[in-house]
Amino acid sequence: MKLYDLPLSGNCHKIRLFLSILNIPYEKIAVDFQDEAKKAAFSQINPRAQVPVLDDSGTVIWDSMAILVYLARQYGGETWLPSEAKPLANVMQWLALSENEILYGLARSRAINLFKRPWDLAQCQEMGSLALRVVEERLSEHPWLANDRISIADIACYPYVALAPEGGLPLDDYPHIRQWCARIQALPGFVGMPGLPETVST
Amino acid sequence: MKLYDLPLSGNCHKIRLFLSILNIPYEKIAVDFQDEAKKAAFSQINPRAQVPVLDDSGTVIWDSMAILVYLARQYGGETWLPSEAKPLANVMQWLALSENEILYGLARSRAINLFKRPWDLAQCQEMGSLALRVVEERLSEHPWLANDRISIADIACYPYVALAPEGGLPLDDYPHIRQWCARIQALPGFVGMPGLPETVST
Repeated sequence: MKLYDLPLSGNCHKIRLFLSILNIPYEKIAVDFQDEAKKAAFSQINPRAQVPVLDDSGTVIWDSMAILVYLARQYGGETWLPSEAKPLANVMQWLALSENEILYGLARSRAINLFKRPWDLAQCQEMGSLALRVVEERLSEHPWLANDRISIADIACYPYVALAPEGGLPLDDYPHIRQWCARIQALPGFVGMPGLPETVST
Repeated sequence: MKLYDLPLSGNCHKIRLFLSILNIPYEKIAVDFQDEAKKAAFSQINPRAQVPVLDDSGTVIWDSMAILVYLARQYGGETWLPSEAKPLANVMQWLALSENEILYGLARSRAINLFKRPWDLAQCQEMGSLALRVVEERLSEHPWLANDRISIADIACYPYVALAPEGGLPLDDYPHIRQWCARIQALPGFVGMPGLPETVST
């Protein structure tokens, strides 16, 4: 199994984390977006020209959400992605948050700060704050985001929520988020990335 | 079944269209976001304070993507949402596009033009153009977005792609998109909305 990857990408980290938790060996392929020829070649693999992309013996899936769904169904089982309509939709709600307020709020705020991307920081932080409030409210009454058990919903939301301080949104006022991060960071197979704990934290 | 709805929302239209194709009767509830008290009350139903929200006899699902997944699994069958990992992930890829480049590119460009929303039009149009190119490329070789058969991927992507001209992105240079729109508009149960055909188009 191959993962087209960038070390500082939270979207890639979702996949690295889930593969590690599932104990699936894989090869990381770093994509060089600075090289126009290599970027064009990569666009043949993913027309959106983004990482992550997974290649599982020729089954190529782009987008972190789609990859999490693929891995959960193929290798993870019901715990990570239920089959039935209602619990499945409950997971999907949080995958949707991960691709909306979390990505366009929290991840963009971080990308503005770290990588000087040309978006409006105040707009992104406002959207990111909404994401944090919605996640905190849910976690104040439940241990996990969907169905009261861990699922790919938690994996999908974790990296950019935990990295929110890098976008200027500290987590001090979100105690349930910090406890949830600690629960994820204590999972067997947890791996960190720059900006996140590299080892188990409590 | 109840749908919390706004007539001009393409995200709501995904659900209205799919419910109509599945021939499921439902009640539309218009949400008044101008009234702060009503908006606050609605936030109790959906913490993101957005439409659409579906209430199926007490099962409440927010987010258009999650609702499409719920309806497909509960009422639509394998055609609309496959169970197996690979075809399921293929659908998910396009759901991801619908929640990313299509929503933050095409839908935002339209919302800037129609509703004077405060985003950067050039940035949104650039992202929207990428969405159109990716969809056109796929449809130049396949009749539908995922797995060579119709699925909720097509329903999720259709409204804001078809409404792209309202965001200043005409579809003249995208012949395969226009043919795909015509195929969707010819489906039994197709319903339109302002900006889209109200009746069958070829």
